[in-house]
Amino acid sequence: MRVAIVGATGAVGHELMQVLESRLKFDELLLYASPRSAGSRLTFGGQELTVQVTPEGPIDADVILASAGGSVSKALAHRWIEGGGVVIDNSSAFRYDAQVPLVVPEVNGEAALSHRGIIANPNCTTAIAVVAVAPIHREYGVKRMIVSTYQATSGAGQKGMDELLEQTRVQLEGGQATHEVFAHPIPFNVIPHIDAFQDNGYTKEEMKVVWETHKIIGDSSIRVSCTAVRIPTLRTHSEAITLELERPATPAQIRELLARSAGVEVRDDPAAGLYPMPLTASGKYDVEVGRIRESLVFDGGIDLFVSGDQLLKGAALNAVQIAEYLQEKGALKERQRV
Amino acid sequence: MRVAIVGATGAVGHELMQVLESRLKFDELLLYASPRSAGSRLTFGGQELTVQVTPEGPIDADVILASAGGSVSKALAHRWIEGGGVVIDNSSAFRYDAQVPLVVPEVNGEAALSHRGIIANPNCTTAIAVVAVAPIHREYGVKRMIVSTYQATSGAGQKGMDELLEQTRVQLEGGQATHEVFAHPIPFNVIPHIDAFQDNGYTKEEMKVVWETHKIIGDSSIRVSCTAVRIPTLRTHSEAITLELERPATPAQIRELLARSAGVEVRDDPAAGLYPMPLTASGKYDVEVGRIRESLVFDGGIDLFVSGDQLLKGAALNAVQIAEYLQEKGALKERQRV
Repeated sequence: MRVAIVGATGAVGHELMQVLESRLKFDELLLYASPRSAGSRLTFGGQELTVQVTPEGPIDADVILASAGGSVSKALAHRWIEGGGVVIDNSSAFRYDAQVPLVVPEVNGEAALSHRGIIANPNCTTAIAVVAVAPIHREYGVKRMIVSTYQATSGAGQKGMDELLEQTRVQLEGGQATHEVFAHPIPFNVIPHIDAFQDNGYTKEEMKVVWETHKIIGDSSIRVSCTAVRIPTLRTHSEAITLELERPATPAQIRELLARSAGVEVRDDPAAGLYPMPLTASGKYDVEVGRIRESLVFDGGIDLFVSGDQLLKGAALNAVQIAEYLQEKGALKERQRV
Repeated sequence: MRVAIVGATGAVGHELMQVLESRLKFDELLLYASPRSAGSRLTFGGQELTVQVTPEGPIDADVILASAGGSVSKALAHRWIEGGGVVIDNSSAFRYDAQVPLVVPEVNGEAALSHRGIIANPNCTTAIAVVAVAPIHREYGVKRMIVSTYQATSGAGQKGMDELLEQTRVQLEGGQATHEVFAHPIPFNVIPHIDAFQDNGYTKEEMKVVWETHKIIGDSSIRVSCTAVRIPTLRTHSEAITLELERPATPAQIRELLARSAGVEVRDDPAAGLYPMPLTASGKYDVEVGRIRESLVFDGGIDLFVSGDQLLKGAALNAVQIAEYLQEKGALKERQRV
């Protein structure tokens, strides 16, 4: 089997290579990036590979992991799959297309099987939330879900992290922090603005959580809202989540349920200083879930806090898990070599 | 009139002196601190003042602004007022005492008039929230209020800020950040743990928001919940707030209402990059309120985002405003000099 990464030199591309080394059985890796980054050499499995320019035509691979931005995917993904492979796309280009499955394998893996050449990888904030919320929805029925996020600068890619680090140095040396990646200086600041504002006053990032939660869980009757906030951390998004439930649940029941749910690490022993944090969740495949407690606003409802590495579960890991799922189900058909 | 500050050398003490210079008419200032800090000299109004050791008996002042921690206030406040003055206490020692008014002047100033020598200054997170929420409650009736906080390190005093700055430097130089003030390293991290955990799984900081919102607004039927989170910022707390209302409101109505509410600056023009942030709210007396939008989970409800300088509105400013209120109402009686 041959795997291709489009956008190999970006932050998610880097994570894709790490995850591929530890998961997925395949024979050959092709790396693609923009003309600016093409020609650079990356090491994979002890071998040096040269990054090629992203093709504008068919890609000769069984699985094409695309993380090159929405406009590139929108323009080219349909061409890439003419090589017979399946694109697992990390951008928002196809997520709301009724023909394209939007998949978190722990939640709706089977949806991947109905793809027509393209599978969408969800928004990172949503992916992290649904691994915790979907099992609760199945058992107790989620009626309302209120999310406030604490999002890391790497959500804006490597350049987001670089800006945080560089500008924090500037500020610590007594200078005035500036900004290019973010709308305002990010060191020691909080910016309630991620992606573009919509007509309803919500940002697109916030609406993605609404739309994608509905599509992945497969129930658009859940009332979902989100406040998406950028904070000065490097990687791993955290989220405070309040849930109103159809059938009342106790914190002990939710802890027990999540402890046997895939993709979740219950980290919930406050007396021992154990709760989800970027410091401990970064680099982990599982999403940390803790601060599980009875809601004070909804009888029988639940409050919880999650921290998940958004470059992994929110992006690279989830994409590779989709490929694994297809492989396990024998759903990666023998391609006609182009 | 004579004013005393107990805890003059702390972070709030510093802010109290700044606020006193620009507000409140009085003749003389007395400064007190622990034996460790006593003897230091601070400048006020161009004059050098020597910090004295906090008395264990009466304080000869009309207004005693106390910010020396709960145990000191609990032990000594009743002795200080034997000098005939009124204590405005910034700790949590008396906030839940039915005999002690808990006051945010814009919301329930008149409660201050019924004091018996001690008035409590609210928790910073609550003070910032209620200046925005109380006017909405009066007009539209708040049924449910869900708060997620983004709290600055100065909530733990000067030493909290120092730890963030020092340990950020350590980490930027490639070292391993350590911690003393916070439960875990704070640079580039998120810690969902402020104050002690209670039996119900909430922290005391979170329950303060519940208890104090009820007491200040004077309506304990409001269902309030909070997730209190420490983030790597220096000063100014932010809060994402979701409100269910008795009577439906539109964002335009809420904007108009808050624009004429005391203590609030409506900063809500996302297209122009205007929303509340620590960067712009720090040092301001008013609480910034923005991201005002229709709730997606409660019909006719409202979501909003606030940033307020918790050392000012959440502490020093509010205390001085209480003193001003008493002065304006002629409620600072002539003391019998001790």
